[in-house]
Amino acid sequence: MLELRLVQGSLLKKVLESVKDLVNDANFDCSATGFSLQAMDSSHVALVALLLRSEGFEHYRCDRNLSMGMNLNNMAKMLKCAGNDDIVTIKADDGGDTVTFMFESPTQDKIADFEMKLMDIDSEHLGIPEAEFQAIVRMPSAEFARICKDLSSIGDTVVISVTKEGVKFSTRGDIGTANIVCRQNTTVDKPEDATVIEMQEPVSLTFALRYMNSFTKATPLSNQVTISLSSELPVVVEYKVAEMGYIRFYLAPKLEEDDIENQAEARPEVNKKPKEEPIVDAKPISEIKPKLEVKAEDENKPQIESTTAVGSKEEIDLMDDE
Amino acid sequence: MLELRLVQGSLLKKVLESVKDLVNDANFDCSATGFSLQAMDSSHVALVALLLRSEGFEHYRCDRNLSMGMNLNNMAKMLKCAGNDDIVTIKADDGGDTVTFMFESPTQDKIADFEMKLMDIDSEHLGIPEAEFQAIVRMPSAEFARICKDLSSIGDTVVISVTKEGVKFSTRGDIGTANIVCRQNTTVDKPEDATVIEMQEPVSLTFALRYMNSFTKATPLSNQVTISLSSELPVVVEYKVAEMGYIRFYLAPKLEEDDIENQAEARPEVNKKPKEEPIVDAKPISEIKPKLEVKAEDENKPQIESTTAVGSKEEIDLMDDE
Amino acid sequence: MLELRLVQGSLLKKVLESVKDLVNDANFDCSATGFSLQAMDSSHVALVALLLRSEGFEHYRCDRNLSMGMNLNNMAKMLKCAGNDDIVTIKADDGGDTVTFMFESPTQDKIADFEMKLMDIDSEHLGIPEAEFQAIVRMPSAEFARICKDLSSIGDTVVISVTKEGVKFSTRGDIGTANIVCRQNTTVDKPEDATVIEMQEPVSLTFALRYMNSFTKATPLSNQVTISLSSELPVVVEYKVAEMGYIRFYLAPKLEEDDIENQAEARPEVNKKPKEEPIVDAKPISEIKPKLEVKAEDENKPQIESTTAVGSKEEIDLMDDE
Repeated sequence: MLELRLVQGSLLKKVLESVKDLVNDANFDCSATGFSLQAMDSSHVALVALLLRSEGFEHYRCDRNLSMGMNLNNMAKMLKCAGNDDIVTIKADDGGDTVTFMFESPTQDKIADFEMKLMDIDSEHLGIPEAEFQAIVRMPSAEFARICKDLSSIGDTVVISVTKEGVKFSTRGDIGTANIVCRQNTTVDKPEDATVIEMQEPVSLTFALRYMNSFTKATPLSNQVTISLSSELPVVVEYKVAEMGYIRFYLAPKLEEDDIENQAEARPEVNKKPKEEPIVDAKPISEIKPKLEVKAEDENKPQIESTTAVGSKEEIDLMDDE
Repeated sequence: MLELRLVQGSLLKKVLESVKDLVNDANFDCSATGFSLQAMDSSHVALVALLLRSEGFEHYRCDRNLSMGMNLNNMAKMLKCAGNDDIVTIKADDGGDTVTFMFESPTQDKIADFEMKLMDIDSEHLGIPEAEFQAIVRMPSAEFARICKDLSSIGDTVVISVTKEGVKFSTRGDIGTANIVCRQNTTVDKPEDATVIEMQEPVSLTFALRYMNSFTKATPLSNQVTISLSSELPVVVEYKVAEMGYIRFYLAPKLEEDDIENQAEARPEVNKKPKEEPIVDAKPISEIKPKLEVKAEDENKPQIESTTAVGSKEEIDLMDDE
Repeated sequence: MLELRLVQGSLLKKVLESVKDLVNDANFDCSATGFSLQAMDSSHVALVALLLRSEGFEHYRCDRNLSMGMNLNNMAKMLKCAGNDDIVTIKADDGGDTVTFMFESPTQDKIADFEMKLMDIDSEHLGIPEAEFQAIVRMPSAEFARICKDLSSIGDTVVISVTKEGVKFSTRGDIGTANIVCRQNTTVDKPEDATVIEMQEPVSLTFALRYMNSFTKATPLSNQVTISLSSELPVVVEYKVAEMGYIRFYLAPKLEEDDIENQAEARPEVNKKPKEEPIVDAKPISEIKPKLEVKAEDENKPQIESTTAVGSKEEIDLMDDE
């Protein structure tokens, strides 16, 4: 028996809106710790991890661990029917093949029940180790979203470079080049306007803008975004979900070869000469050991996959972490 | 000679916006009583009746009864050119083949004349008898519109069930089911937020959401909508037009057979098993006598048609009624 | 070396938005006088002239005259990345093949550089003589935009007729006719709401609404628009750019023959009888001498082209004028 009552139901609406374009089907895992999800995007390039801690719910009853396979698009369709001020309750029976979303208006005049069929989805949890990052940038989430969108009008990839002075976002395309520098700024009127850079050593990594733009769909969840960078690790783009959890997006940096291939795919009609200098400090992600393994399926397209060694401890790691 | 001056010209704009998608061509009838329209939708399933009483106009001159055939899309195009604060005057000569819409800005600085060609349209007035309904629901129009839209993301039909406690809107589709209950609520701060249920006996009827969604285009006309239900009659969905009249939409309930057929039309690629229990209390509308007759053209698609017995008395009924 | 710093960077964004749909590629000319552009639209029917005077820039350095060929769509893409409060600086080296747009946020926390490749574009300056107009109408730009949009839903051309009482905009199409009269009105609360008519003699000219609608993309630049009409000249539709310049659109009036041809092109399925009376007072523009010549390429489609006599004096005329 599962019954999770969330007073700020709009949070769940926003969470679904931020992952439904990236992930088609996924298992939501419910345990005493909280309500969580971990899934690869459909092209197996990016990873999403969501955690809503049990303490954040007004009422949280989860008699035993439950994994519920859902089509995120259908789930989003149902959650869209909740009013922004509605209280949302998620209900499921232990052996059942459906989940029910109940929406109560603040005045209790309108009560809706949406029942959705569950799916069987094969998935294994990826253990995500605690990591040290070379640089962590915290900045206004709307600013980050604007930059990713702006650069997309010029090029397909973004180079994120962090120095002590600030963080630079660069791209290059057929019509020219763009560089946007955001300076560290902690003396702001509102804390959510701050740009804070914690840097161990300078880092410069290249990412596909397509995924970055997808991650920024989570912008309505939080005023700030945290971008954690290391040349040995996938970038982590994190949005807090109120005081109760987070949504984290992981994306492997692009290597020079990927660049060429992807550009060829995306724009077959133009000349395919690589325009960017090789990014020499970005080590192949497949070298990262032992828990997080990135395998290049076709020698070019990096993939994050769980190793067989990944067990329950790491799964709990993901939930407990932070 | 016809000259109707409407200070709140935006009402006419909103009226056109609410019927133009449902009805292509229709006769507007002008008499001493008022300016009215009655028309079937293009698939002959729903009926629209509009009345703007003469007292609601600042100036109302109609020397003799006049029936003006108009293409509602073209009429809407012209009315869209009126400003929201403009005074609208409708002018026509008795023998003429055009109608003129004059728009005056509040400051009289801008005056526009739009002249439209009239059409010959065959139509007969359907006498709509005064009827007793099993249940009448009055609720916020925006709430009703939201419910119809939300349910459309799940299924194709809505079951509206009224009990003393409230009104329930239900649907069922491939991805699951949905039930939305609105409770009677008369102790509200603003009268337009009230939900009032007058029930003689419980009723439960099924309708095509496509039409319901079309009717809710009239939502900008009024804060409240009235839904009148009887198992022997088409539902009446009514929006008041200021203090001067109404727009009413009539729709025959769906029978179980319709359901199957319509689903087969709409989604030919999926399994066609009927998912809803037969609605046993919805009698075939063709049994309703004597004035309103619903004929099933192809044994499955119900149609509302006027009987030959319909005369001028009933036509006046429609205009005088209320 | 070129360096132009514009504090109100949003002006440049709005300028680009107002011309990019009309003109694909154009030379921006930079001299001690200012930053200007003159270009024909891609179908060679309309002409755009932009001037931003050097005094309007916070910093204006232009060591020698420079003509920079740009793709306006790409330039608009880059300028869209500027924030509305950003300071925009345009930089170029004398011999270089690129131009750089720098955007600084008001707090200086975010600085962006966009570098765009320049193009070689063949173009000659058209000398535009000082002219006397039969009538000059100044009116709210939003009102003019609304009228052009409204009339487009009825017909393809607009007849603009000026008398002492006001200016009349008329059109005619398959569904009917429309006439919109705006009266002279100088006793308004806000100066930008005034409609002022300076008339030497009555004038009535016909124009393609497609171009007029394109010109009104400049509406965000200014609260007022000035329309200068003469039966011997192209109409001039002018929007001021703050206190620093203007954008002017020139369009030759349509002759009756054009009307027929264009309607035939636009709506081949309907009966092609010309519906408008011949506009007898609109002399063929090709008769206008000596500096501005309109040549009918295919005997029907009027074009504005520069004569060989056009020299540097006239080019400066365009910039110095007003």
